[in-house]
Amino acid sequence: MTALPPLRSLDEILRLDLPRFDEAAARAARARQAQLTKPPGSLGRLEELAIFLAGWRGTDRPRIDHAQAIVFAGNHGVCAQGVNPFPQAVTGQMVANFQAGGAAINQLCRTAGADLTVIALDVDRPTADFTEGPAMTEAECLDALARGGAAVDPQADLLLLGEMGIGNSTIAAALGHGAFGGAARDWVGPGTGADAARIALKADVVARGVARHGHRPPLSLLAALGGREQAAICGAVLAARLARIPVLLDGFICSAAVAPLAAADPALLDHCLVGHLSGEPGHRALSAALGKRPILDLGMSLGEGTGAALALGVLRGALACHNGMATFAEAGVSGA
Amino acid sequence: MTALPPLRSLDEILRLDLPRFDEAAARAARARQAQLTKPPGSLGRLEELAIFLAGWRGTDRPRIDHAQAIVFAGNHGVCAQGVNPFPQAVTGQMVANFQAGGAAINQLCRTAGADLTVIALDVDRPTADFTEGPAMTEAECLDALARGGAAVDPQADLLLLGEMGIGNSTIAAALGHGAFGGAARDWVGPGTGADAARIALKADVVARGVARHGHRPPLSLLAALGGREQAAICGAVLAARLARIPVLLDGFICSAAVAPLAAADPALLDHCLVGHLSGEPGHRALSAALGKRPILDLGMSLGEGTGAALALGVLRGALACHNGMATFAEAGVSGA
Repeated sequence: MTALPPLRSLDEILRLDLPRFDEAAARAARARQAQLTKPPGSLGRLEELAIFLAGWRGTDRPRIDHAQAIVFAGNHGVCAQGVNPFPQAVTGQMVANFQAGGAAINQLCRTAGADLTVIALDVDRPTADFTEGPAMTEAECLDALARGGAAVDPQADLLLLGEMGIGNSTIAAALGHGAFGGAARDWVGPGTGADAARIALKADVVARGVARHGHRPPLSLLAALGGREQAAICGAVLAARLARIPVLLDGFICSAAVAPLAAADPALLDHCLVGHLSGEPGHRALSAALGKRPILDLGMSLGEGTGAALALGVLRGALACHNGMATFAEAGVSGA
Repeated sequence: MTALPPLRSLDEILRLDLPRFDEAAARAARARQAQLTKPPGSLGRLEELAIFLAGWRGTDRPRIDHAQAIVFAGNHGVCAQGVNPFPQAVTGQMVANFQAGGAAINQLCRTAGADLTVIALDVDRPTADFTEGPAMTEAECLDALARGGAAVDPQADLLLLGEMGIGNSTIAAALGHGAFGGAARDWVGPGTGADAARIALKADVVARGVARHGHRPPLSLLAALGGREQAAICGAVLAARLARIPVLLDGFICSAAVAPLAAADPALLDHCLVGHLSGEPGHRALSAALGKRPILDLGMSLGEGTGAALALGVLRGALACHNGMATFAEAGVSGA
């Protein structure tokens, strides 16, 4: 278990010594799957997920005894452009709602058995408007990234990541567009409820931001276009990797937060799953660009980690089968 | 709470006095959803599911305190045609595995909080081979249907249905083809592991069965082409409806089991959800024919109710949000 070391530049991310998938543990898990009382492959994605968790936890019988969910919250200067119908005060109000237990993520963490950590990142001090300059300096970005890393419990055996931040579907669209190209309008969507005119405005804002900053190398897009909660998500993803903790990202915003990592080196996200395909239209292309197949597809677009918390139920099912089923020999069931 | 009355003919199914969706309860649930601390619609399918459960349970705050899962098992004379690579003895061996707690459905019911009932339907006495005559007489079919109905606990607030029966993906293909037409080859697939040659054989067997019996009215296809576990599933669906218990069907085999009901009167299945899209290729068209959108899509094809048990986690999440979230007013969160 190694904590995320202090980084003096974003480029140092590429020089971290990151653990890799344990092929021997995965092989042993695959061999166990072949003996369980079911036709080979008939548990579909559940089998893949059990083997994925085995490889990252380095054991043929992985367990989820302590799932940690973290919601990072931040505010964004780009809201000055009118990209979101809700006032920015809602970010702090929702943080209070998380702390009081009244939000969707509280209910879904309780149902799925995850411990929720809420980290508000200077919500009274929005980042700069990326249409006018970089959203954050590299130092501000590294600070948020470190705070994200520090929030990860190294004793967790699974990390769920979510976010809250009025305006951050515009941030996400800018990161996706900046990291992976395409047209600005393909990355924007209704977010918390933008109408057609506001979606067109979002596309224009995203296009202007990427025109201004898109020439930068991928990792520095995180500072130029991202917000504190996006940088913190990246920090948490890296800290989890160092502790061999697999990560369940939520949906569109989380996927976009790590897009700069993927564009710099896709292997940085090898230990990450995407919980659900968001209803936000850009998430399909974003998932494809990340090379990730979301586990659920329920038309959700709330964020907070809600899609990850629901997907935790699927992971728990996968491991319950993997660890609890009888083998053909144990049950006296004939093979094909 | 009304039990399923004794039926003297399959046609009497169409004369049952079935409860309908409670629009007032659904309206009240929809109004509550609009006040919860989230953008309208942002919980996607979770919102629809909460409202669906409200309407069928007749309350704006439905709960799942007692989810009953039933696995019905039966054997099929059509196995004489060589449609399945496993011996028919596996059906009884798997029933023993269910009873001993070693199968996938045991693990998934425990994880999701469902009480499992296992009903073996004369597994030592397969139905007749439908290529040679009707699989069951109407009396045999009504007997299995009644046993299915009797297995439903009227105190349950949700019913999950699954099945086990070597050869029953061929039964399912025949029911789908018989009820909804198309080409026999579009309804067959690998099942428990048929290779290309065996899949071609299955298509031929299904085509011969439907050529022989397909002219019958929809409900009598259940006796002519179905097996005991398919008839029992229909009986359980009807008994649940009479008790206003919503039903979570598993995947391909369960969907095909109720295809004769849907073909006779689609409203018979208004209280049913489909837990997952099976990896079995015919399930996409079958779901569309039933007018049902499966909740999960994880490439599973095991049966037993495993897809329904996993989907129960989604329903629990939907109700946890519906019942547990704070409203905008309660949390002091500003609207758009």
